[in-house]
Amino acid sequence: MRATERPVVKVAVDAMGGDYAPQEIVLGTIQAIRDDRGKGIEVILVGLEKEIKAELSKYDVTGLPITIVNTTQVIRDGESPVEALKHKPDASILVAMQLLKRNKVEAVLSMGSTGTVMVAAIQILGTIAGIKRPAVGVTLWGLAPNTVMFDLGTNVDCRPRDLFNFATIGSVIAKKVSKIDNPTVAILSNGAEEGKGNRLVKETYNFFKESDFNFIGNVEGNDIPTGKANVIVCDGFVGNVLVKYSEGLGDKLIEIVKERLEDKLAEKEISSICNDLFEVTHIADVLGGAMIYGLDGLVWIGHGRSKASQFAQSLWQVKLAAETGLSEEIKNELEKIQYRDIGGE
Amino acid sequence: MRATERPVVKVAVDAMGGDYAPQEIVLGTIQAIRDDRGKGIEVILVGLEKEIKAELSKYDVTGLPITIVNTTQVIRDGESPVEALKHKPDASILVAMQLLKRNKVEAVLSMGSTGTVMVAAIQILGTIAGIKRPAVGVTLWGLAPNTVMFDLGTNVDCRPRDLFNFATIGSVIAKKVSKIDNPTVAILSNGAEEGKGNRLVKETYNFFKESDFNFIGNVEGNDIPTGKANVIVCDGFVGNVLVKYSEGLGDKLIEIVKERLEDKLAEKEISSICNDLFEVTHIADVLGGAMIYGLDGLVWIGHGRSKASQFAQSLWQVKLAAETGLSEEIKNELEKIQYRDIGGE
Repeated sequence: MRATERPVVKVAVDAMGGDYAPQEIVLGTIQAIRDDRGKGIEVILVGLEKEIKAELSKYDVTGLPITIVNTTQVIRDGESPVEALKHKPDASILVAMQLLKRNKVEAVLSMGSTGTVMVAAIQILGTIAGIKRPAVGVTLWGLAPNTVMFDLGTNVDCRPRDLFNFATIGSVIAKKVSKIDNPTVAILSNGAEEGKGNRLVKETYNFFKESDFNFIGNVEGNDIPTGKANVIVCDGFVGNVLVKYSEGLGDKLIEIVKERLEDKLAEKEISSICNDLFEVTHIADVLGGAMIYGLDGLVWIGHGRSKASQFAQSLWQVKLAAETGLSEEIKNELEKIQYRDIGGE
Repeated sequence: MRATERPVVKVAVDAMGGDYAPQEIVLGTIQAIRDDRGKGIEVILVGLEKEIKAELSKYDVTGLPITIVNTTQVIRDGESPVEALKHKPDASILVAMQLLKRNKVEAVLSMGSTGTVMVAAIQILGTIAGIKRPAVGVTLWGLAPNTVMFDLGTNVDCRPRDLFNFATIGSVIAKKVSKIDNPTVAILSNGAEEGKGNRLVKETYNFFKESDFNFIGNVEGNDIPTGKANVIVCDGFVGNVLVKYSEGLGDKLIEIVKERLEDKLAEKEISSICNDLFEVTHIADVLGGAMIYGLDGLVWIGHGRSKASQFAQSLWQVKLAAETGLSEEIKNELEKIQYRDIGGE
């Protein structure tokens, strides 16, 4: 490889997904690729070619590695994912997934809707070893940068096997992305001692004790922000409530700080402080979305309301994940534990 | 009744419970009674008379309505509640509960341990209609003052009937304490729409729809701080994790605010702002403890680490609860729903 060459990451971008498609998607793609963090990304914009071209024509994109794959159908907001996907085989999200399935790209990036992306991904890519329903988890960058939390919403009723899968996936992320050698794993519970917890936690505890995880036991809610464990697992119901509660509580505290500092500091300083508080409490917003794990392929769902700059963030995250071989490693690790008896058929 | 007379609330105080017994308990009792908010409270200090008298002798308590009931045994930190209570029938917490059982007092107040108080209360007072395990819930004074949340830790595995009980208790508190006429009731879930939620939420939703509650459906984590519902129910596992996460997140944000404001504002101003943030996030600390609901009697558990001023807060809360006839009303309401089919034997 010559010095000027870089490994290339090809990403299929669903140009029609999200609240501001295709405008902000196209602009975000250009911004991401022009930035240093986007070096080596090649984007295939999937969607209505005419609309995409109209957006591209607003900017100077000479020489940028952007191509278009035309599709003829669009899924509108509010359509039932299952129905829409059945009747619109040429929808952008399905075509993007097909590109991934046929190894034409290494990842798919879409701004939603979450339901549609999830259903399309499961239909076309399928899930991997032991995964019934893909999981969503994130590194708590703003809050506890060395902690990965799973599941944050997709698996609301879990068996011990599900938490076992989450811990496996989380450990790979901690190793590959956060570069933590022997990541500690903990179960979120209502008490630190063994024997504390609901039925799910108690059962899972026993399986974790006998596992190869670097298991440190239960952690409590107040242990999350201190980064007590590198991987924290919980069912998706608890995870979802926590992430959303963070946002609500964050907003409340930002409001208080704003009010208290008004007339005391310059507006710019106040907003800088509030921005810090926002980054700690708005876990999902900061990331601009989340990877879906447990699929046979790399898929990232961004926020529907993402503007260009958040979209660019997502694209950089996707590149990072692709470069580290995250998906393949997770697949390997999940396959290893597939036949073990860990609470769940 | 003469104009100078006030209704009296008699409280049995476990003088030996908590980390700073009996010193801070005795001092807190004196402070509470001397304050306007403590007018009408009569306290019976239950514990080792010699130790209590030694503390009382440090202050001028002439004319204060404080008496002592002597006991000979003390339960030490770390003792198993069940074992300790079996072998120490003359422990202060048991004697205090007996006073309540025999209607000599209207309430029991103890600074813990929680386990010991809970077991003693169940043994001596018993639970009421349909309650398997007493529930702990609070009004979110600092965060959302018109919202009561249940359960915050004692019932980790719940059936719909448990959530039904929590909503019943919460509605009474909202009416009696917060003076809300027709309190709205919601289930905490991972999505607002009907059909969202884990198994427990989905099942409970159906029972709530057919109930007499002013049921407004599901609320999400971010709806808690906005006070979207007057009564929010969840299982105690979720409630416990949320309350503790609040504390951890609050500490983190306070740390950030402190750091960012250092050198910019006077220390006094910074600590006043941080105190506001503390009050919003440290739900249990602010209250100094919590009532235990579902017992046949009024019992309040304070924090083990409570100092005199927090103890005084607890005593005032107990007075308020006793005056409003909270326990009796909850008992009535729970009895009304006892024979309804609401998911649970």
